[in-house]
Amino acid sequence: MTKTLQQQLQFLHEIDRLKTVHRQTFLIDRSRRENSAEHSWHLAMYALVLAEHANEPVDAMRVIRMLLIHDIVEIDAGDLPLYAADGQAQQAERESVAAKRLFGLLPPEQAQDLLTLWHEFEAGLSPDARFAKSLDRLQPVLHNAATGGGTWPEFKVDETAVKARVGPPIERGSLTLWQHALERIQGYFRGLG
Amino acid sequence: MTKTLQQQLQFLHEIDRLKTVHRQTFLIDRSRRENSAEHSWHLAMYALVLAEHANEPVDAMRVIRMLLIHDIVEIDAGDLPLYAADGQAQQAERESVAAKRLFGLLPPEQAQDLLTLWHEFEAGLSPDARFAKSLDRLQPVLHNAATGGGTWPEFKVDETAVKARVGPPIERGSLTLWQHALERIQGYFRGLG
Repeated sequence: MTKTLQQQLQFLHEIDRLKTVHRQTFLIDRSRRENSAEHSWHLAMYALVLAEHANEPVDAMRVIRMLLIHDIVEIDAGDLPLYAADGQAQQAERESVAAKRLFGLLPPEQAQDLLTLWHEFEAGLSPDARFAKSLDRLQPVLHNAATGGGTWPEFKVDETAVKARVGPPIERGSLTLWQHALERIQGYFRGLG
Repeated sequence: MTKTLQQQLQFLHEIDRLKTVHRQTFLIDRSRRENSAEHSWHLAMYALVLAEHANEPVDAMRVIRMLLIHDIVEIDAGDLPLYAADGQAQQAERESVAAKRLFGLLPPEQAQDLLTLWHEFEAGLSPDARFAKSLDRLQPVLHNAATGGGTWPEFKVDETAVKARVGPPIERGSLTLWQHALERIQGYFRGLG
């Protein structure tokens, strides 16, 4: 076996652990919380289906690649809940170290490609990254709206807090999708009143 | 909301159920069996990383799209274990009906695109489909080899049966990957003797 193949298989073996990283979001049937591997699959499907709604032209397949790899760092760094009060700065540092270790398992050229793509996603400054981040924020909103509020009551966030947290990133990627998300958020919180 | 967006979001809502379809294969940490959504993510990563080992030139991004959607039919049809003695013909019919219903939730043009791609995967006659099917057979072999035989002792299959079942499809997509898989299979079964 060549060293290249050995490194590639070691990476594919290691990332199996993403299936054991749990997120806060519930599955739509409410049977359990979502893990980061199946979440990444779901987001890739979001990109495959919704690319036409991006504010700017995007390369859907590049967005898919970004979303497939965007959470791999959580194998080392864990998933930090969106509504956690603090720890976001330390989390960014942990994720950066994790990206070097995990993508670094690959042969050098692939390692560099995926590390660069991951940093582009994190920075969120390109059209592809803006749209990828938009979908990453949209999906939990739709799951919460479909599961009696999901993590919103759990983290005791109100309509204003939710809109402030998810509005800007969703809107930057897609005004159309934000319009829909806003209706779902309002529908849930106004149904409580 | 346009009808197009409504249909797209309905599809993305419905396919969340793939996370509750369980396969026979164990996670590498043996904590539980794999579900078909996280399996699809893992295979997409296999394609992203291993495309250079295909026997014929492949379009890695097309292989990734195929692998992202290849198991969605299991939402209606369930997962049939590879070593199940019979039921393969009825399963193919159930999957075909499921593909029409599930991809049919999408706007007509996207529905047709994904249905065509799914049929191409199932037929396994194009280079992209051959490689996609090869990875779909390779991953459980590597998981079984890494988890004390995994489903092999459970289904009471011996080395000859495993090689007969997974050899041809893996080899058709990649001789290099089959060479490695064969070593892992032999390593496991000869370790038992």
